[in-house]
Amino acid sequence: MIIVMRKSASDDQIKAIINEINEKGLKPMPLYGTERTVIAVIGDERILDQQHIKSLPGVSQAMMVLPPYKMVSRETKYEDTIVKVKNDIEVGGNKIQMMAGPCAVENYKFTKEAAKACRAAGARILRGGAFKPRTGPYSFQGLGEEGLKILRQVGDEEDMAIVTEILDIRDIDLVAEYSDILQIGARNMQNFNLLEEVGKIKKPILLKRGLSAKIKEWLLAAEYILSNGNPNVILCERGIRTFERETRSTLALSSVPLIKELSHLPIIVDPSHSTGKPSLIPPMTKAAIACGADGIIVEVHPKPDEALCDGQQALIPEQFAKLIEELKPVAKAVGRTM
Amino acid sequence: MIIVMRKSASDDQIKAIINEINEKGLKPMPLYGTERTVIAVIGDERILDQQHIKSLPGVSQAMMVLPPYKMVSRETKYEDTIVKVKNDIEVGGNKIQMMAGPCAVENYKFTKEAAKACRAAGARILRGGAFKPRTGPYSFQGLGEEGLKILRQVGDEEDMAIVTEILDIRDIDLVAEYSDILQIGARNMQNFNLLEEVGKIKKPILLKRGLSAKIKEWLLAAEYILSNGNPNVILCERGIRTFERETRSTLALSSVPLIKELSHLPIIVDPSHSTGKPSLIPPMTKAAIACGADGIIVEVHPKPDEALCDGQQALIPEQFAKLIEELKPVAKAVGRTM
Amino acid sequence: MIIVMRKSASDDQIKAIINEINEKGLKPMPLYGTERTVIAVIGDERILDQQHIKSLPGVSQAMMVLPPYKMVSRETKYEDTIVKVKNDIEVGGNKIQMMAGPCAVENYKFTKEAAKACRAAGARILRGGAFKPRTGPYSFQGLGEEGLKILRQVGDEEDMAIVTEILDIRDIDLVAEYSDILQIGARNMQNFNLLEEVGKIKKPILLKRGLSAKIKEWLLAAEYILSNGNPNVILCERGIRTFERETRSTLALSSVPLIKELSHLPIIVDPSHSTGKPSLIPPMTKAAIACGADGIIVEVHPKPDEALCDGQQALIPEQFAKLIEELKPVAKAVGRTM
Amino acid sequence: MIIVMRKSASDDQIKAIINEINEKGLKPMPLYGTERTVIAVIGDERILDQQHIKSLPGVSQAMMVLPPYKMVSRETKYEDTIVKVKNDIEVGGNKIQMMAGPCAVENYKFTKEAAKACRAAGARILRGGAFKPRTGPYSFQGLGEEGLKILRQVGDEEDMAIVTEILDIRDIDLVAEYSDILQIGARNMQNFNLLEEVGKIKKPILLKRGLSAKIKEWLLAAEYILSNGNPNVILCERGIRTFERETRSTLALSSVPLIKELSHLPIIVDPSHSTGKPSLIPPMTKAAIACGADGIIVEVHPKPDEALCDGQQALIPEQFAKLIEELKPVAKAVGRTM
Repeated sequence: MIIVMRKSASDDQIKAIINEINEKGLKPMPLYGTERTVIAVIGDERILDQQHIKSLPGVSQAMMVLPPYKMVSRETKYEDTIVKVKNDIEVGGNKIQMMAGPCAVENYKFTKEAAKACRAAGARILRGGAFKPRTGPYSFQGLGEEGLKILRQVGDEEDMAIVTEILDIRDIDLVAEYSDILQIGARNMQNFNLLEEVGKIKKPILLKRGLSAKIKEWLLAAEYILSNGNPNVILCERGIRTFERETRSTLALSSVPLIKELSHLPIIVDPSHSTGKPSLIPPMTKAAIACGADGIIVEVHPKPDEALCDGQQALIPEQFAKLIEELKPVAKAVGRTM
Repeated sequence: MIIVMRKSASDDQIKAIINEINEKGLKPMPLYGTERTVIAVIGDERILDQQHIKSLPGVSQAMMVLPPYKMVSRETKYEDTIVKVKNDIEVGGNKIQMMAGPCAVENYKFTKEAAKACRAAGARILRGGAFKPRTGPYSFQGLGEEGLKILRQVGDEEDMAIVTEILDIRDIDLVAEYSDILQIGARNMQNFNLLEEVGKIKKPILLKRGLSAKIKEWLLAAEYILSNGNPNVILCERGIRTFERETRSTLALSSVPLIKELSHLPIIVDPSHSTGKPSLIPPMTKAAIACGADGIIVEVHPKPDEALCDGQQALIPEQFAKLIEELKPVAKAVGRTM
Repeated sequence: MIIVMRKSASDDQIKAIINEINEKGLKPMPLYGTERTVIAVIGDERILDQQHIKSLPGVSQAMMVLPPYKMVSRETKYEDTIVKVKNDIEVGGNKIQMMAGPCAVENYKFTKEAAKACRAAGARILRGGAFKPRTGPYSFQGLGEEGLKILRQVGDEEDMAIVTEILDIRDIDLVAEYSDILQIGARNMQNFNLLEEVGKIKKPILLKRGLSAKIKEWLLAAEYILSNGNPNVILCERGIRTFERETRSTLALSSVPLIKELSHLPIIVDPSHSTGKPSLIPPMTKAAIACGADGIIVEVHPKPDEALCDGQQALIPEQFAKLIEELKPVAKAVGRTM
Repeated sequence: MIIVMRKSASDDQIKAIINEINEKGLKPMPLYGTERTVIAVIGDERILDQQHIKSLPGVSQAMMVLPPYKMVSRETKYEDTIVKVKNDIEVGGNKIQMMAGPCAVENYKFTKEAAKACRAAGARILRGGAFKPRTGPYSFQGLGEEGLKILRQVGDEEDMAIVTEILDIRDIDLVAEYSDILQIGARNMQNFNLLEEVGKIKKPILLKRGLSAKIKEWLLAAEYILSNGNPNVILCERGIRTFERETRSTLALSSVPLIKELSHLPIIVDPSHSTGKPSLIPPMTKAAIACGADGIIVEVHPKPDEALCDGQQALIPEQFAKLIEELKPVAKAVGRTM
């Protein structure tokens, strides 16, 4: 940590800080400049509370030199993490995984049709919401356990793994019973109690980026899960909130290679929710793969105009199959397989 | 709802939409323009799902004319809601309520000192966190039930009402037992299950604005609570996330008079978390009152440099007492009392 | 400057940096930590180019300790700057200055009516656009020199100073001939050539904050003007661009007390452009004054529904007169006069 | 245009609007709903001023149905525009154009080395700044005309076209004399007078997206140029300003396919300024090409650590040559050539 004192800081204030750092077992290095004094701290600064240091009398700034996360950091574990999902299905290896299916599970028929088509096109993971987070209380909230059962049945019939969102901490056992991957949605990325609880199970967790989450906060959310015992975290870039209104969110694809530098965790991309426009899904999926994404989660619905939720951003099965074909050369161009 | 068709929309697509609107019991009014067809919908459009309409073939845009919330709207209830907290303490009336106290409850001593000083200065509501949402898993997370007990004891001793944050849906009964107001923090503003559950109790809810929540989303979050049966919601502007780095968040004060136009609910302001700088608290508190806030929630700590959490943004008791004195003429200038 | 080396930085890379700092006449202080080496630089770091240092081999981060601006800084000049505008009219003293008038100068009649009413209510500075920046090429662009003449004539008749926007570097002499204050609009805040040129004249400059300008960038824009010889800069907070759509921009009022801490320059607030809603102007004007603004610039138009530009955000003269009356006790409450 | 009246709008207010629309030669279609009246306008609504309509008494909202731009719209011109730069060099055709070179022109030697290497790797357009926009007044501002001469000489020697930034409206003839493409930087995207002037010459204009420009505003800025007579506009996505701090800006790549839908103009991507990190340039360049970009503008410098400007975000020639090789299969995968 680098502590920059105010121009007006007194000698006593400087001494008090030096003492406090010594007491923590770290080594303070004061630098008496012409305009200000700076105190550098030698040792593992993560045991210091940055906010606390900033509040000490005479302190102007306190900057961390080390990142605040440890277990998710590539400095801690150099090799890419490959998350094993089920049987031969894994995320983070050479093969790019497609997670596809309807936004919400509405009934067996639509789910089956979507799954069958996605599986035929090459997708191995079926997505679908049984519990839906909805901005207003008057919208369709999902089928609940009935939806989970449909997902499981269809997944088993089509030899696909299942990913579905967990909203309520009280539903963890229920969702974990039916699903192969538990998804934490953007609005729950900083629901820390939920993060802790999914850290106590062993099933893979798909952690979506919060709408206004900084990369650092997103990695700290993953750190919550890893530090509670579950190393199987898959990150998912799904767009951030900006001033732009033409797309639903702004897909911040540079997070993909950046996360690859900072962390060993796999990362996938959601082109459906980020753009909100089916016509943008194919180009943005190609872009995601080109910059290093380990997978894609995309909405596919046999009848988007009859969907109860977000139908306007879903691909139809024919579009999805065509997309997969177009993706193959892109994947190959960056040394990956589909 | 106004439905704008694509230039290329076919007659059949237009007819299909007209039929669907008729089936819902609403009245479609097609307008055949020179460049595009527009369909206006007469009736209570809130029974239509905007996302679904947008996904219909041939549709370019679908715009809501009515706001998506009802119970929180001033069009539904014209008079200001006054939330009764305890005894003679209420929020939303002529008197501006000060909620003051430490960021986190650390021990009886500090809490008592802070409460005593705040009460002496005129504050009637004691704030303090027993469960703390922390960005990373390695920071102080609060004392839990022990903290609640301290708060209650000190509140009773000083004749103050208590406001504290509820983080985990499983803790509602516990927190409601000890606290007079339950706070939903910014990170949980769209934790819809939590909103529903606090909608089922009767205690007042302090609903903080999410870091990137639009006004509309914030009011819809309140709608979740009201529609579950609890009308006692107090909104709290606490700053939004922007590109600016000099302050912790950007205090968007114009939300105060805007909420007053759109809704009957009371609204208070948090100058501590939004600015992150004690020197900015007095001027921004004055500004909040000048533009119509019904109260202020502010961090006061007897020893900010020994605080375990966010000490650097707390006022000391002397500063708080001085601030209250300075606020009195401002409140009077806008026809309010302190 | 604090230079944090990469974990993998070699001894030669560290030595090269130390040598470079020495060559610049500054004093490098290397700190060999357990995880990384940090080099602190003693002396006036502003002669170092931060971007250049960051690019040196082995460097991870380079943080400035001193702010990058000098002449605008309160550390350089402690006393508040009071900008003399004309006769007894000045900005930055105890009296809060109201700058009021139509968005655009449309004709003599409307300008005269607006000016007369504003002057009667107490405003001493007449605003009005002769050159209008318009997002699209098909909107009304202003009357040009004819508009300047109308402004000057009306200003003289009503004993008001004039403030108007300068858009084109080629018009400086023209605008300076007619106007008492030259306004640099939000879109030109980083038009550095224009800043340099208005730095070479002596007339006061009203420098609006850019739509996405950080406080630091805004102060650096002012530094361009001061460093070219013109100390008469008035800053104007006019809202920043965020995700919120209910208001035109987000009025970031905390910039007012923050600028007062960082700089000696006066700062005023524009509640019209920031909110875009007349009903929000009175409360936000009160808030601006309550948190320390030195003045207000507001749109007043005798017939907003006939205005050629931004009429929907203008006050009518009666509203303006009423607002002034309401502001008086607020100003008094914070020790200012109107 | 769709005009939504307030609930409280009077019959006279509605009639006044209907009359005004009739007077403009458009056809008003009032719809008397149960809660509000809506007036749809049939005809080319672009002759109405949306701001003016919004300001009329009784109006709640006024929404445009047609986009505000015309000449840049794909609805106006369906075929892709291919901008001819020089000899056989064009932007917007099947071949992806690489614009490469140093951030600033510092001297003949570095420029020559960079150009030679870029040309050898396959780039046909040399970039380099002679006039540099710098946030603060104390940074290197560019060599001016001397820089232009160096660029021209090196461009001719290496058979490359030249692109360089124009900052000052007074320099247009000078820059147009030496350069093949004139670049309008992000900070000048809404310098409307500059846009008009470059609209009067015939040389291609590279129009960078403003830091906080919406897609619509960006296209309107291009409309300024086209409507003044110059159809040769190349758009450039260079990242937008968001809350994220890990990258310099947030590269909003979804603008690429979106612009392709909305407009016929070619669009390129700047991975250097948007990310600010050389390690992110290769993956984001691949992503840009994968989602449809017509070209890339990238900083290449033989000695980034000796660069006077932004050296830390430049590739060295070897990295650039390697990148080009890696791009070839990606371009081929989406049906393009390098």
